[in-house]
Amino acid sequence: MEKLHYADYLQLEKLLSAQDLESEKKGKKAHDEMLFIVIHQAYELWFKQIIFEMGSIKNLFNNEYLEDKTLGLINSRLQRIVKILELLNDQIRIIETMTPLDFLDFRDLLQPASGFQSLQFRLFEAHLGLKWEDRSPVERQYFNSRLRKEERAILDNVIAEKSIRELIDSWLSRLPFLEFSNYTFWEHYRTAVENMLNSDEQSIQENHTLSDPEREMEIKNLKATRESFETLFDKDKYSKLLDKSEVKFSRKAMLGAIFIFLYEDHPLLHLPSRILNSLIEIDELIIKWRYAHALMAKRMLGTKIGTGGSSGHQYLKKTAQRHSIFSDLFNVSTFLLPKSQVPVLPDEIMERLSYHFDVLRKG
Amino acid sequence: MEKLHYADYLQLEKLLSAQDLESEKKGKKAHDEMLFIVIHQAYELWFKQIIFEMGSIKNLFNNEYLEDKTLGLINSRLQRIVKILELLNDQIRIIETMTPLDFLDFRDLLQPASGFQSLQFRLFEAHLGLKWEDRSPVERQYFNSRLRKEERAILDNVIAEKSIRELIDSWLSRLPFLEFSNYTFWEHYRTAVENMLNSDEQSIQENHTLSDPEREMEIKNLKATRESFETLFDKDKYSKLLDKSEVKFSRKAMLGAIFIFLYEDHPLLHLPSRILNSLIEIDELIIKWRYAHALMAKRMLGTKIGTGGSSGHQYLKKTAQRHSIFSDLFNVSTFLLPKSQVPVLPDEIMERLSYHFDVLRKG
Amino acid sequence: MEKLHYADYLQLEKLLSAQDLESEKKGKKAHDEMLFIVIHQAYELWFKQIIFEMGSIKNLFNNEYLEDKTLGLINSRLQRIVKILELLNDQIRIIETMTPLDFLDFRDLLQPASGFQSLQFRLFEAHLGLKWEDRSPVERQYFNSRLRKEERAILDNVIAEKSIRELIDSWLSRLPFLEFSNYTFWEHYRTAVENMLNSDEQSIQENHTLSDPEREMEIKNLKATRESFETLFDKDKYSKLLDKSEVKFSRKAMLGAIFIFLYEDHPLLHLPSRILNSLIEIDELIIKWRYAHALMAKRMLGTKIGTGGSSGHQYLKKTAQRHSIFSDLFNVSTFLLPKSQVPVLPDEIMERLSYHFDVLRKG
Amino acid sequence: MEKLHYADYLQLEKLLSAQDLESEKKGKKAHDEMLFIVIHQAYELWFKQIIFEMGSIKNLFNNEYLEDKTLGLINSRLQRIVKILELLNDQIRIIETMTPLDFLDFRDLLQPASGFQSLQFRLFEAHLGLKWEDRSPVERQYFNSRLRKEERAILDNVIAEKSIRELIDSWLSRLPFLEFSNYTFWEHYRTAVENMLNSDEQSIQENHTLSDPEREMEIKNLKATRESFETLFDKDKYSKLLDKSEVKFSRKAMLGAIFIFLYEDHPLLHLPSRILNSLIEIDELIIKWRYAHALMAKRMLGTKIGTGGSSGHQYLKKTAQRHSIFSDLFNVSTFLLPKSQVPVLPDEIMERLSYHFDVLRKG
Repeated sequence: MEKLHYADYLQLEKLLSAQDLESEKKGKKAHDEMLFIVIHQAYELWFKQIIFEMGSIKNLFNNEYLEDKTLGLINSRLQRIVKILELLNDQIRIIETMTPLDFLDFRDLLQPASGFQSLQFRLFEAHLGLKWEDRSPVERQYFNSRLRKEERAILDNVIAEKSIRELIDSWLSRLPFLEFSNYTFWEHYRTAVENMLNSDEQSIQENHTLSDPEREMEIKNLKATRESFETLFDKDKYSKLLDKSEVKFSRKAMLGAIFIFLYEDHPLLHLPSRILNSLIEIDELIIKWRYAHALMAKRMLGTKIGTGGSSGHQYLKKTAQRHSIFSDLFNVSTFLLPKSQVPVLPDEIMERLSYHFDVLRKG
Repeated sequence: MEKLHYADYLQLEKLLSAQDLESEKKGKKAHDEMLFIVIHQAYELWFKQIIFEMGSIKNLFNNEYLEDKTLGLINSRLQRIVKILELLNDQIRIIETMTPLDFLDFRDLLQPASGFQSLQFRLFEAHLGLKWEDRSPVERQYFNSRLRKEERAILDNVIAEKSIRELIDSWLSRLPFLEFSNYTFWEHYRTAVENMLNSDEQSIQENHTLSDPEREMEIKNLKATRESFETLFDKDKYSKLLDKSEVKFSRKAMLGAIFIFLYEDHPLLHLPSRILNSLIEIDELIIKWRYAHALMAKRMLGTKIGTGGSSGHQYLKKTAQRHSIFSDLFNVSTFLLPKSQVPVLPDEIMERLSYHFDVLRKG
Repeated sequence: MEKLHYADYLQLEKLLSAQDLESEKKGKKAHDEMLFIVIHQAYELWFKQIIFEMGSIKNLFNNEYLEDKTLGLINSRLQRIVKILELLNDQIRIIETMTPLDFLDFRDLLQPASGFQSLQFRLFEAHLGLKWEDRSPVERQYFNSRLRKEERAILDNVIAEKSIRELIDSWLSRLPFLEFSNYTFWEHYRTAVENMLNSDEQSIQENHTLSDPEREMEIKNLKATRESFETLFDKDKYSKLLDKSEVKFSRKAMLGAIFIFLYEDHPLLHLPSRILNSLIEIDELIIKWRYAHALMAKRMLGTKIGTGGSSGHQYLKKTAQRHSIFSDLFNVSTFLLPKSQVPVLPDEIMERLSYHFDVLRKG
Repeated sequence: MEKLHYADYLQLEKLLSAQDLESEKKGKKAHDEMLFIVIHQAYELWFKQIIFEMGSIKNLFNNEYLEDKTLGLINSRLQRIVKILELLNDQIRIIETMTPLDFLDFRDLLQPASGFQSLQFRLFEAHLGLKWEDRSPVERQYFNSRLRKEERAILDNVIAEKSIRELIDSWLSRLPFLEFSNYTFWEHYRTAVENMLNSDEQSIQENHTLSDPEREMEIKNLKATRESFETLFDKDKYSKLLDKSEVKFSRKAMLGAIFIFLYEDHPLLHLPSRILNSLIEIDELIIKWRYAHALMAKRMLGTKIGTGGSSGHQYLKKTAQRHSIFSDLFNVSTFLLPKSQVPVLPDEIMERLSYHFDVLRKG
């Protein structure tokens, strides 16, 4: 049997024969089209890796009982996705070595193909938790018309699955942190919140450097904060937000996330909080990637239309934050308190949230 | 006389004794406040360097006659600013090692101090070309009340100077590329534009993959492009844009910039086009920096108010692109044509745009 | 009492008045000296932050009993140092905007000052664990002559303290993982090792693609591996290595590190393994930083002497890996086995290495 | 005819079906093998792009007469290679998310395949200018045995071509800067050099902070510098270096490079100096890449043998600088002088080295 060879293992024959320049076929070879193809293929390779990691993460979440061992694995794979997304953001610097004029050399030949047709990027969004209803009508029609039937089918299947966002939601909801035997955490938390908001209000009132319009603005901000706390404490108000899809996480999940961040330095909450932070990082990096692409499109085409007959800049800019999946986790910060004001948990609970090396010594 | 010593040369005694934790003074030392101080000081050091380079660039531009030797120097200094801004963007990763909870430990003690009070960042904006009228009323009042009289005076002085944007404008306007003895470039360019737009329109009409609402959207985009070209060719329409400050560059400067990008591979236009690209890079990096800070503020505070009694996220996000200085240069791409459609210049002019090593041989 | 102002909080008056160009004093201002000063000051600011974090880490380690809560804190501070070192590596790109010719403009004026005189960098090395005996005789004389008495005293004090390397060593040595009641882990491990090495040898023998000289080389490598395992299992051989300071960690610490990496996915070993990886990252980043500086010095000066009258390139290149503090941790990989070959721990011990969220449910 | 579709244009069917896990075939799927395959494929895609750019650069150089227009194109393509190499260096961070234990899960299955078998990386080295004689005997045997006959043939063909280093050499050699009608530049340069070296020697002698052994060391360094200048001025000494292949560039090319760097701010030398700097950047990035891989291999395997039955760490570390192609260009810095000491060129020559925008005005 033949010995394994690097070129066969990586199937380089396939990989390196997959770059055919449209401009060459059309008899007017444009040097920079090669870069255009290679960089998009590099993106697609990394999308495959990201989707592969997300699939495994979904499987790991898909069992009722998650022990810490699994959480460590989940987080290291989320962190791998983070590193890949950092690379994909840096990768933009390479395409910027192509001038708008170089691009115009072959752009018309690519019509109507478009980056919007990247099935893997749509799957990436779907695995994370983006649903059809999160997209604008135009966007939906757009994908309907631009994705092939079979691509559309694959996408719909993934959208039908429980997304990572949903799995996180049910994981957070079933975390056993919310009601304790004879200790009602939320009452103590609520009191602490009141004190904080009052002192914030005072700080604005006493801030003589503020002009009146500024002060008004700040008071308005604070009022908004009070209201968001209200929506947290009041089941009905919260469901209204859900109906208007201003929030995506269930109330129970939000409370779980807040508890995790408030007590993240307790051993048992260490990995859960790292996982939530990894999700925030991923969301942030996708937002930055969309935004950077919006700027790049503007730089390449100005207000011209993209190869897909679409105005990339506007689309990417608009969706940068609108398609955020974990914005609720960003907002958890709204609900945090200074350590000094965080309710102290009863010893009994503290004990349960800790573990010690010396359990081993006992052996 | 004493030999020069590293510590004296860098005045480390001053530099390294400039970190006093408010939390320590108040008797409740917060470990992470040190990072908060050091990272802001690092920003301020680099702002000083950027301002220093911008000052020298302004001086170099401030003489009627710029020879290529000077252009090389200007561009290398612009490129230095680019590298610094890339670093300042990466630097955000360090502050992200501080959790919202760590920040809440000392944030209240810093009120009402705020990053908005960074005079050097305001000077940076002013040197580039941001004027008072570019700021929102609230923003103006804000700076009025938060900057000290002397700081405000320094800022006003720089704003009163010719900014880099203005110097670029007059440099572009006086470039001898626009009218040639007996060759009216703009007529040929205009014809070429018409052809391009018509073919673009055709490509949309023939793009059967577009749904009707999409097609409408694209037609609208194209119409917008036609109109922007109109504003370019029609003096009056252009001045209307200027009045509404939808553009900042003079029409003559825009035409100069377009010419440079269209013929950038001609020796004499090599450096001018690199300078314009450096300015675009700088603008892009500032936009990304503001945007990344907006996300970071959101991650730290959610919708809470910032230390300065301001909602950092909203402010930074809003200004990210609104305070762009060179958006007109991004838009130049709107006015470029595929090389094949770019008017061919008469040999006489081509010759003037070139130079050859062999001039030396002639010696 | 005056309201806190950004400029006062950051002591900008001191910070921004600490840049005096030698070239200006000497009446021949060199534009690029400003960058030279600012970038070195930025390095010093970050060195201060790193030293500050290392001091806190040493304190946290300095108590007999470390609970997991502390380990989380230690690791997040190590990770902060990692992020800072990544930035310091990127920062080199900025100095590379200065050409050798620009540097020659003022370099002679700085003699005999030199980056070698950075006390903080020496403290950084000392806190990590670099001792006088780790330095070459020339190097020692050099610091003796170039550091001021008071600087030398401060450095000696830190060197006299227990370094992070030493604290890690005693922490690893007292981890309760090495001998269990009635299970002698090391016997099982040793057997597993034998099997692995034998299969490795076989793979070389059967690797017909190897030329004879190659095969010899590989056999030599494998023999070396066998011997390093020997030194691990044989107390006396190991102490010989310690005497020749070919290793720095005590044998007990090494065994602890190996155990941690072999079973890192067990909840209780999650944080310990992350801490060891953070230390490896830090070591790696310092090595890269020294190496990148060596290349930069070569690029700036070729084989010319540095400002301190020293040949920077040679020094930095030589010390890049020789001054590695945690190379022993890199070498742990030498002692790892494929998961399939790792001895399975008895249930009783497994149980002790795990904890479960549901302990809470029990409440 | 079918409309162009994104997936067909990028041949995603081929690209995304080229990842088959050996571990899966062998029935023991190792999750991390997917990352291992994808990251290597990403490297290979970028290698193809780099080779593509190098091919075009070689063609551009391959005509006797290079006008500035071509130099601009050459440099922008070299800069594209720089950006790609920066990305390939960052990419290492992703593989570092795989632990040594994860790697051991499948490493044995890949024997005897090895990264050393990457034909494209060998072609990359060959295009730049690495010849067989630059490799160690073991290395040569190694490639003989590990590369397939057809791969070896392709490699030999490229090695037989004029490499970029050789093309640069002949380009530099024919630059018309070295002998001027009635001005013998080199005499003036040589005098200036003498003055500089003498002042350097003085600075060492007067540097009382140096210990005796240090001073000796420095004097030795300076002597070395004198000697390298000698080899520059003395044809015979230089050819001896060539024979010992301690230098690669012809003496004429070196003199050309020195002249370019000494007068780089003259318009006509602007692009030539940028090209030389791009080559230095490329060399530096390859060195860093090899070095970073050496560290990564050590971290993964310690002193274990690599999948190809080779000790990756040692090989990569050793070759990091030994395979440098443009080290001669780094060394040019050795021969530069402070601007103040650089010989002033006669006006006639200065004039020839400049051009002015106003040549246009004359029209």
